[in-house]
Amino acid sequence: MSVVSIIGAGSWGTSLSVLLSNNGHQVRVWSRFQEEVDLLNREREHKEKLPGVKVPETVVFTSDLKACLEGHDFVVIVLPSQTVRENARLLAPYLSPNDIVVLCSKGIEEESGKRLSQVVLEEAPGVRVVALYGPSHAEEVAIGIPTTVVAACPDQDAAMKVQDLFMSPSFRVYTSSDIIGAEIGAALKNIIALCAGISDGLGYGDNSKAALMTRGITEIARLGTAMGANAKTFSGLTGIGDLIVTCTSRHSRNWRAGNLIGKGYTPEEAVASVKMVVEGISATRAVKGLMDRYQISMPICLEAYRILFEGKDCRKAVYDLMTRRKKHEFEDTGW
Amino acid sequence: MSVVSIIGAGSWGTSLSVLLSNNGHQVRVWSRFQEEVDLLNREREHKEKLPGVKVPETVVFTSDLKACLEGHDFVVIVLPSQTVRENARLLAPYLSPNDIVVLCSKGIEEESGKRLSQVVLEEAPGVRVVALYGPSHAEEVAIGIPTTVVAACPDQDAAMKVQDLFMSPSFRVYTSSDIIGAEIGAALKNIIALCAGISDGLGYGDNSKAALMTRGITEIARLGTAMGANAKTFSGLTGIGDLIVTCTSRHSRNWRAGNLIGKGYTPEEAVASVKMVVEGISATRAVKGLMDRYQISMPICLEAYRILFEGKDCRKAVYDLMTRRKKHEFEDTGW
Repeated sequence: MSVVSIIGAGSWGTSLSVLLSNNGHQVRVWSRFQEEVDLLNREREHKEKLPGVKVPETVVFTSDLKACLEGHDFVVIVLPSQTVRENARLLAPYLSPNDIVVLCSKGIEEESGKRLSQVVLEEAPGVRVVALYGPSHAEEVAIGIPTTVVAACPDQDAAMKVQDLFMSPSFRVYTSSDIIGAEIGAALKNIIALCAGISDGLGYGDNSKAALMTRGITEIARLGTAMGANAKTFSGLTGIGDLIVTCTSRHSRNWRAGNLIGKGYTPEEAVASVKMVVEGISATRAVKGLMDRYQISMPICLEAYRILFEGKDCRKAVYDLMTRRKKHEFEDTGW
Repeated sequence: MSVVSIIGAGSWGTSLSVLLSNNGHQVRVWSRFQEEVDLLNREREHKEKLPGVKVPETVVFTSDLKACLEGHDFVVIVLPSQTVRENARLLAPYLSPNDIVVLCSKGIEEESGKRLSQVVLEEAPGVRVVALYGPSHAEEVAIGIPTTVVAACPDQDAAMKVQDLFMSPSFRVYTSSDIIGAEIGAALKNIIALCAGISDGLGYGDNSKAALMTRGITEIARLGTAMGANAKTFSGLTGIGDLIVTCTSRHSRNWRAGNLIGKGYTPEEAVASVKMVVEGISATRAVKGLMDRYQISMPICLEAYRILFEGKDCRKAVYDLMTRRKKHEFEDTGW
């Protein structure tokens, strides 16, 4: 039995608290919002973000970071991606070198273009960051629907410890040493989900969406390998697996924003209508910087950028993608 | 402008006749059924198999194989997979060495375990077989929905000629030299579609289905590479791309049969209820022979075999898949 401190009480944090508690661990969940903590301790249910799921009585919710982290064996970060740096800074005084930090937030830091594991390591040097990613809707994990994920870390001892911690008959964890590939896939999939929404909004079909997903992960792999990732990671659970779940779910806010854009809304109108952060938009801006820096051809992401930031017509963007010069299927890839 | 002889007047054959005719080619379509030919020549629409799509007046339907093939530049085979051998034998007298035969049928010959391009070559030695596969519902292609496919042939000259023939602003064709990988992916995807149906029938979720698809293509790639395919083909349009379209479509007969099995029907009852050939079932039998012959670990296909042919309980099969020993994500793959 381990002591696990979960930082963040959103739908995924709450869902993982149920999983880990069912696995027999002692779980504490931190939220900065006292009101949310009181509600969760009283109701044992996150009615707004994870309705219908009862959290076991043994899970403790707290807004006291020190109390949450006391005697921890593992720390799990499940925060909105753009708040990871400020919160990692708050955590740092309570962490020791070699501590295992499980990273469940996905994204690229907007200003720096850095991966979130880099951000955590800058704020808390010496810890071992393990990314836990894969096709995993929180609502399904909380009720024991069979789910598979990957624990990725260059330190295989840390990855295997995380595998042991989370694994259950309904939650299968594979290990991987390629955290770069896992992070790039997890962050950039939102761009393709947004494009899938645009395609559906334009009235295109399943053929078009499957093409976007397949060619989309191909160009993400191209950038990823240039950044040091292993190409095969993108054919795995953190690559195409997570992309499939994101692109085929109508609940994805990225798909919904894209769908509105495909129907003729401006990107600003679409974001206003979705009323939530649309990570695919900031990811598109970030990836434009990366494709320029690494000199990688990413035609789908580039057309997304032109639609979002240069007012390009969606149908024209699709036409331009379809009528590029004739190619071999893998001529642009290094693999 | 080329003369194209399409062998088979089902939904995909009819759809391709529209595409090729719109590309400016002279198209003839052969069906063995005189009644079907008369109906198509009169109505210019396949009301049973491709309703709502008008076939251009220039397309000729005929039951006279010799007339269909006279002066052909390309032959396109779009037949049920288990009829390819007998029809290739009928075609052979009208084919010359180096003729390009575009193979659109997908499958493994049940008795021999052979790929369909091998079957065609045995019956018509010396022709150049190009497989044209990818995520391509016939109904969408016929109405100009953006679609991408691959023309696969070791002879790149032949692959590029097929690319030129089919390519249009709504139908993008990539070339590939890996016909083995394209054929294995196209044939075995139906097993995973069947499993996806079982998963949905059991009431499992998007996480489970994404896991089946991702881990499914991983084990198909494992077999494929042992049989001489290139691993990366399975991350492309004929691999994961085609699998995505098949597994997410409720129209797939394989998904429907699996869905019924997941809900408690026996395989026999499920097939009877679907009232069509369920290729995933014969593919499962074929792949069981191949995994034994090549000594490849294919846990998902093996559980499918146990469910279909040994009466294994579906939930027990899922439990056994989820509780296998802890693994690295790619430890069983050669790539």
